[in-house]
Amino acid sequence: MRIIVQKFGGTSVASAEGRERALTKIIKAKEEGFSVVVVVSAMGRNGDPYATDTLINLVKTIDVSVNSREMDLLISCGEIISTVMMAQTLEKAGHPAVALSGGQAGILTDQNFGEAQIIGVDPKNILRRLGEGNIVIVAGFQGMTADGDITTLGRGGSDTTAATLGSALEAEVVEIYTDVDGVMTVDPRIVPEAKILRNLTYQEVCEMANNGAKVVHPRAVAIARDKKVPVKVKSTFTEDSGTLICDGQSDRVITGIAFQAGIGRVLVKAKNGHLGPEDSVKIFKVLAGAGISVDMNSISPGQISFVVKQEALGKVGDLLLPEGYEVELLPHCAKIALIGVGMQDVLGIMARVVETLHKHNIKLFQTVDSEITISCLVLEDQMNQAIKVLYNEFGL
Amino acid sequence: MRIIVQKFGGTSVASAEGRERALTKIIKAKEEGFSVVVVVSAMGRNGDPYATDTLINLVKTIDVSVNSREMDLLISCGEIISTVMMAQTLEKAGHPAVALSGGQAGILTDQNFGEAQIIGVDPKNILRRLGEGNIVIVAGFQGMTADGDITTLGRGGSDTTAATLGSALEAEVVEIYTDVDGVMTVDPRIVPEAKILRNLTYQEVCEMANNGAKVVHPRAVAIARDKKVPVKVKSTFTEDSGTLICDGQSDRVITGIAFQAGIGRVLVKAKNGHLGPEDSVKIFKVLAGAGISVDMNSISPGQISFVVKQEALGKVGDLLLPEGYEVELLPHCAKIALIGVGMQDVLGIMARVVETLHKHNIKLFQTVDSEITISCLVLEDQMNQAIKVLYNEFGL
Repeated sequence: MRIIVQKFGGTSVASAEGRERALTKIIKAKEEGFSVVVVVSAMGRNGDPYATDTLINLVKTIDVSVNSREMDLLISCGEIISTVMMAQTLEKAGHPAVALSGGQAGILTDQNFGEAQIIGVDPKNILRRLGEGNIVIVAGFQGMTADGDITTLGRGGSDTTAATLGSALEAEVVEIYTDVDGVMTVDPRIVPEAKILRNLTYQEVCEMANNGAKVVHPRAVAIARDKKVPVKVKSTFTEDSGTLICDGQSDRVITGIAFQAGIGRVLVKAKNGHLGPEDSVKIFKVLAGAGISVDMNSISPGQISFVVKQEALGKVGDLLLPEGYEVELLPHCAKIALIGVGMQDVLGIMARVVETLHKHNIKLFQTVDSEITISCLVLEDQMNQAIKVLYNEFGL
Repeated sequence: MRIIVQKFGGTSVASAEGRERALTKIIKAKEEGFSVVVVVSAMGRNGDPYATDTLINLVKTIDVSVNSREMDLLISCGEIISTVMMAQTLEKAGHPAVALSGGQAGILTDQNFGEAQIIGVDPKNILRRLGEGNIVIVAGFQGMTADGDITTLGRGGSDTTAATLGSALEAEVVEIYTDVDGVMTVDPRIVPEAKILRNLTYQEVCEMANNGAKVVHPRAVAIARDKKVPVKVKSTFTEDSGTLICDGQSDRVITGIAFQAGIGRVLVKAKNGHLGPEDSVKIFKVLAGAGISVDMNSISPGQISFVVKQEALGKVGDLLLPEGYEVELLPHCAKIALIGVGMQDVLGIMARVVETLHKHNIKLFQTVDSEITISCLVLEDQMNQAIKVLYNEFGL
C-alpha cells in the first residue's frame, strides 16, 4: 500500500470553496494510486463558532483558570467537526471516506493536557479503513491517553499529527497544504522578488521555523526527519509543485531569511561596574521564575544582554531594578536570521553580514550564530531594509 | 457508595443562569452524602451553535444524505461541549468535577448509528472518578461501539443515558430535571387546575409518554423499570419535590390525560361494497412500504379506518386511490388518551367516556383501548374542550 498523508489547515476546511480545493488535491492523490490519509485542523479563525479560540473563549466565560483535561476535551471538538465536514465533502463527490478522532486514529499521548506529547501510534484502525477503500480523515492536534482521556498537542499540532502518521504509516510523502506556494527565501511582502525554495533540508526548515518563518511546525519536521519521511509544503489554492523537505546537502551558502519583530532588548550593568557569574545566575533565575523566556543571550564581564518579547520588557525592568542593577531597555527591535546548511563550510559570512548592514547605516545591536544560522538584532523600523540588503548581498 | 444520577436538559446547561440552578441541585445531592453522576444534553435549541440541530444543519450544507457514522461523530460534540461547561461551573464553585464522553463513561452500543441501542455499560471509569471525590459529568445521548466508533442513541437519548447509568451503577434514584415541576395530570395550558402527580408507576408513565405527554422518554422508563431504579421528574427552576416514578399499584381509576394533535384519519371502503382480509394486508403493506406509520387501526368487514400523521394524509390518498378503493380523508384530528393502571379493575369507564363526550356535543370518531389506556379520536378544534370535560368527569 502506497500511503500519502495530506494536511489541510483551518482556512482550507472552513469554507465550501476551501473544501472543494482540498478535495481536488485528495482525489488527485487517490487517482495516482495512493491510499490517502487526510489530517485537518479546526475550521476557520477566532469568531467562527467551531474555531479553537472560540471554543476556548466559550469555557472562559465561566472561569479563567481552566482545567486542562476538560479544556482538551472541549477543544478536540473543533477538529472533529472538521473531519466530518471533509468526509462528507468526499462522500458527496463519490469517494468513500471515514472521519476519525485522534484517539480513533490510534494516536497515543502522555497526560500533559494542552501540550501533550505523542508517545505511540497504533495505526491498525487507519490501515483497516484504508484497506476497505476509504479515504481516512483524521482530526489533527489531538490524541488520547492510555486511560482514554482526550488530549491536545498544543498549537501547530496538526502538522505534528501529519508527520507522526506519516512516520507510523511509512508514508511516501507528507504534504502540508497552506495558503502559500511553498517555503520562500524570505517573506514576499518584504522582498517581492522572493523565490520559492524547491528543496530544503529538515535542519534548514527547523531553523527557519524556530526563527519566525511560518512554514511547518518545527516539531513536525523533527518527527519526519527521524524516519526520513519527505515533507512537501504546497498551496491548497494553486497547482505549484511547492517545496520538498528531505535529507541532504545544499550548495547554497544562505538558503533563506527569517525574522521576528516585536522584540525588546535588555542590557544589564552592575551599578558598581562589576557583573560576575553569580549575577548572571541570579538574573536568569529571576526571569525564569517570572515565566519570561530569553533569547540572544550575551554575557560579558561588564554586562549581560538578551532579548525578550516586547510585551515582557516592562516586567523585566520591574524585576531587575530592585535587585540593584542598571538596566537599559530598548523596545521595538527585530531579529533577522540568515539560515543555510552551506554556511558552515564557508568563511567570512559574518563579516559580509556586518559589513552589509554597516554600509547601509543599519545599526546592529547584537549578533548570535549557530552552525547554520546567523541572527542579527536591529531596530524594527530598519528591519525591512536590513532584510532587503542582506537578501541582495547573498543573491537569494 | 450511595449514587445518584441527575439529568439536565439543553435549556438547563445553555445559559449561565440554568447552569447555576443545576449547580444548586448537584451540590445539594453531594451534601446529602451522594456520589453524583450528572448527565447533560447539548446546549440550547436550534440556532445556538452547539445545539444538536445546528450541528446537523452544518453538515447538511454539504449533503442531504448524511452518512450516519460521521453524523454521530459530529453530533456527539454537542453534549461533550455541555459536559465541559457543566464541569467548569462546578470547578469554579469549588467542587472537583470530571467531564466524560459517553464512550469514556463506558456506554457500549451496537453499530446502529443515529439510533444506537446500549448493549452494555462498563462503569469502572465513572466509579474510579467518583471514588477520587469527583462529581462526574457524562455526555448524554451517546455511546461507543466495540470498535471505538461514536454513536448516538436517537432523540430523547439523554434520558436513556441517565436511566442506563442509574441501573448499571445501582443508583438510589435517577432525577430527570426539566422545566416543569413534575408529571401533571394533564397539560396545564389546557386545564389550568391540572395537578402534579406525586407518584406514578413505570407503566403509567410509559403510556403517557407514548401518547404524547412530554415527560420522560419511554425507553428510559423501561430501562429503569427493569432494575427497579426509582425515577424522579423535577424542575431545575423550583424546589418542588416533583413526581416519583416507581413500581406499585395505584388506586386511581384515571391517572392522567395525554394527547396528540396533528393527526389525520383515513377511512377506506371498497367501491364494490366488499372489503376482505386480503385488502387489509394490501393496504397496510403499501403504507409500510412508503414509510407511513399507522395507529388506531379498526378493521371491520365493510371498512378499514386508521390514523396517520396529518402531513402523511395526502400521500395515503395518492397511494390508495389508484388501488381502486374509496378513501375518505379527515384532517385536523386529535387523539386523547386516558391513562390509569386502576382502570383495568373498574367496569364502565368506556361508557362514561362516550357519554361525557356525547353530552357535550363532541363528535367521537373512533376509540381504541388497551389494558390501562382509552384513546379517543376527536376533531382538533374540539380537543381542548374534550380534555376539559373528561378531566372533570373523572375528577382528576
